[in-house]
Amino acid sequence: MTDALSITRDLVRCPSITPADAGALGVLEKLFKAAGFETHRVTFSEAGAADIDNLYARIGNTSPHISFAGHTDVVPPGDEKAWTVGAFSGEVKDGFLYGRGTVDMKGGIACSAAAVLQYLGQHGGKPREDGTGSISFLITGDEEDVAVNGTIKLLQWAEARGEKFDHCVLGEPSNVETLGDCIKIGRRGSQSGTLYVEGVQGHVAYPHRASNPVPDISRLIVALSEEPLDHGSAQFQPSNLEFTSVDVGNPATNVIPGQARAKFNIRFNDRHTQGSLRELVEARLAKATGNRIKAHIVWEPSNANVFVTKPGAFVDLAVAAIEDVTGRKPELSTSGGTSDARFISNYCPVIEFGLVGQTMHQIDERTPVSDLEKLTKIYRGILDRYFA
Amino acid sequence: MTDALSITRDLVRCPSITPADAGALGVLEKLFKAAGFETHRVTFSEAGAADIDNLYARIGNTSPHISFAGHTDVVPPGDEKAWTVGAFSGEVKDGFLYGRGTVDMKGGIACSAAAVLQYLGQHGGKPREDGTGSISFLITGDEEDVAVNGTIKLLQWAEARGEKFDHCVLGEPSNVETLGDCIKIGRRGSQSGTLYVEGVQGHVAYPHRASNPVPDISRLIVALSEEPLDHGSAQFQPSNLEFTSVDVGNPATNVIPGQARAKFNIRFNDRHTQGSLRELVEARLAKATGNRIKAHIVWEPSNANVFVTKPGAFVDLAVAAIEDVTGRKPELSTSGGTSDARFISNYCPVIEFGLVGQTMHQIDERTPVSDLEKLTKIYRGILDRYFA
Ligand SMILES: [Zn+2]
Ligand SMILES: [Zn+2]
Repeated sequence: MTDALSITRDLVRCPSITPADAGALGVLEKLFKAAGFETHRVTFSEAGAADIDNLYARIGNTSPHISFAGHTDVVPPGDEKAWTVGAFSGEVKDGFLYGRGTVDMKGGIACSAAAVLQYLGQHGGKPREDGTGSISFLITGDEEDVAVNGTIKLLQWAEARGEKFDHCVLGEPSNVETLGDCIKIGRRGSQSGTLYVEGVQGHVAYPHRASNPVPDISRLIVALSEEPLDHGSAQFQPSNLEFTSVDVGNPATNVIPGQARAKFNIRFNDRHTQGSLRELVEARLAKATGNRIKAHIVWEPSNANVFVTKPGAFVDLAVAAIEDVTGRKPELSTSGGTSDARFISNYCPVIEFGLVGQTMHQIDERTPVSDLEKLTKIYRGILDRYFA
Repeated sequence: MTDALSITRDLVRCPSITPADAGALGVLEKLFKAAGFETHRVTFSEAGAADIDNLYARIGNTSPHISFAGHTDVVPPGDEKAWTVGAFSGEVKDGFLYGRGTVDMKGGIACSAAAVLQYLGQHGGKPREDGTGSISFLITGDEEDVAVNGTIKLLQWAEARGEKFDHCVLGEPSNVETLGDCIKIGRRGSQSGTLYVEGVQGHVAYPHRASNPVPDISRLIVALSEEPLDHGSAQFQPSNLEFTSVDVGNPATNVIPGQARAKFNIRFNDRHTQGSLRELVEARLAKATGNRIKAHIVWEPSNANVFVTKPGAFVDLAVAAIEDVTGRKPELSTSGGTSDARFISNYCPVIEFGLVGQTMHQIDERTPVSDLEKLTKIYRGILDRYFA
C-alpha cells in the first residue's frame, strides 16, 4: 500500500519516541528500495547522546536534484488515557487520522513518499525521461530532542560523499489553521546569553559599604528589553530579545549580594548576523552601564543562524502547486521556532510545507484524512513543475 | 577576683558557642549571689530550637531600678589555628586580652559586674543607703543565633513575676574605633518581604502570546529602589530598602517564565511604624504597576520594630560618665543592625554602651586591657549618678 494514509498509519504504529526508531525508517527504506532508490542507513554518535539511525535515499545521478526532508521521531504521547484512540494505534475516526506524529511529521513524510512513488510510476521509474534529474529523501530520527545526531550530520555525511542538493522541501507542519495557508521560507536565528552584574557584597544595615547588583541588573534588563533591535525586514518580523530568567540565589535576608545574573534569548532576522547582533547588544549594554555598573555578557554557542529562501522560481512553483490544489495563496512566513531547515539552508534553498500544525505535540494529535490526499497532490504538483 | 579582667577571662574560658553555656552563667551567678543578689536560672524552650539557659539577678526591691543586660553566648571561633592565642584561652599579650567574646560581649558584662560589685561594696551592699533603688542583671545565652529563647522570653518571664524596669544599659560593643566614641540610643526597625510578579508563560518565539515577568519585576525593583522612603529624622539616618535577591529559576532558554520574585529588606526609622511602612510600599508598588503589571508583596513577620531612647536625663548621665573617663563626647547613634535592645525597649528606655566592636566575630577578637578598666569606671560613673 503506497498511498499516503497507509504509509502514515504504518509509521504511526512505530512508537518512535526520540531516540527510539521502532522500525519507522525501515518502513520507508523498503518502499524506496522497491522503487529503485539507492538507500543508506547511517548511524551517528555523540558523547552523552544516544546513537541515532538516519536514512538517505536517492534516485538519479544528475541535477536538478530535489530532496524531501523530514524526521520520523516524535515527542512522547503524554497521558495516553486522555487520547480518543491509542496514541500509536493509527486509527481513523470521523474522517481524522489520530496518533502521535500524524502532523509532526510522519504524515508529511508519507505524503512526499506517496507523491514521489506515484510520480516515478508514471514516468518510467525516472525523474525525467532523458535520464537527468534526481529525487532524494533525507530522513532523520533525531529532531525532537537535542538534534545532534540527525540532519546536521546526515548533510555532512552526504556532502563528504559528493552529494549536491539543488532544492529541498521539508515537510514540517507549516500551516497554521488550514492546509495551504502558510509556507515557511525562512526562520529567525536564535542566540542566547547570560548577563552578569558584579556588585560588592555587604550587610543591609550598611548599604553605603556595599554595591547592590539587584537594582543595577534590573536597570540593564529594562534598558535592553525596551529598545527594539530593528523594525523587521522584507521577509521577517522584528528581531526580539527576551530575558528568560534573572537569578541571585541569596537566602540571607540581611545580606546585599555580590553578583546577579540574567539569561536571555534573541530571535533575530536577516538584518543581523550573529556577529553584528552581539556587537549591537554589547554596545547597548555599554551605554546602559554608563561606566558605573560592572557588567558583562557570556554568549552561548549557537548553530541557529537566520536564513531565508528568497522569493523566486522555486518558491513560485510551490505556491502554484498549493494554489492549484487548495485554491489558497499561502503566506510566505518566517515566524516561529527553529527546525532542521536551519541546517539544510547551508546546502541549498529550502522551504517548509506540510500539514496543519494545530494539534502537534498535543493529546489527540490528528489530521483530516483529506489533508493527506491534498498534501500528496501538492507534492506531486511540485514534482511535475520541478522536472517540467 | 572581682575585677573586670579576671571576670572576662573566666567567662572567655567557657567556650559558650550558642547554644552551649559551658559554665558561663555559673561564673556570674556565683559572683552575684555572693554580693547578696537574688538569682534565678531560667530555661526556655521552643520547638525546633535548642533549650537555652538564662540568668536574672536583682538586688533591692524598689525603683529606681537600673538593669545591665547582655549575652554570654558567642559565635564560633572560625579557624582556631589562625588565632594568635587560643580562642578560649583568655590570654593577655602586649596589653590586649584575646579571645572569642572579649568584646562581644563577655568583656562588657564583666565590666558591669565589676562596677556593680565595687559600687555595692562601697555602699553597704545596697543601691542606696535608705534602702530604695534596685540593680539587676538580665543575662541570656541566646543572642547570636535565632534569639528565640533569650532576652525576649526572659523579659516576659520577669514581667509575669512583677518585675518593673526603669532603665537599662546593654553592654554590646557600641564603639566604632575608640572607647567613648558612640552610644547607641536606638535602632532602626527591620522588615522583610517578597515581591511576586505574575506573567504568562510562553515560548520565546511567540512573545506576543506570553507576558514576560522579568522586565516587569525589573521595572518594579528600580522604582522601589530609587524613591527614598524618607530623608531621616532627628535621631535616625534615612530609612532604606534593599532588594537582596531576585529569582526566576527558569532553566529553559526558549521559555518565557510565568513568575518572578524578589526579596527585599527595609531598615526603617521612627518616621514609620511597621504598619505605615507596609502601606507606603504597597502604595508605591500600586503606582509602579500602573494596573498593568500583576504584582503583590508577601510580608515576613518581624519582631524588629524601630525604637529610640530620646535624649534626656538618662542619656545625659551616661554621656557625662563617658566624658569623665575618656574625655570624649559620644555620638548618639541609631545606625547598624539589630540587637536585644529591640526587645528591652518595650519595657523601659535602653541605651547600648560597651567596648570597641572592631574585632567582633573575627579571628583574634581582642580588647585593650585598659579599655576594660575604663569601661568599668564608666559603668561605675553611671551608677553613682543614677543613685545620687
Ligand atoms: Zn517536527
Ligand atoms: Zn553581641
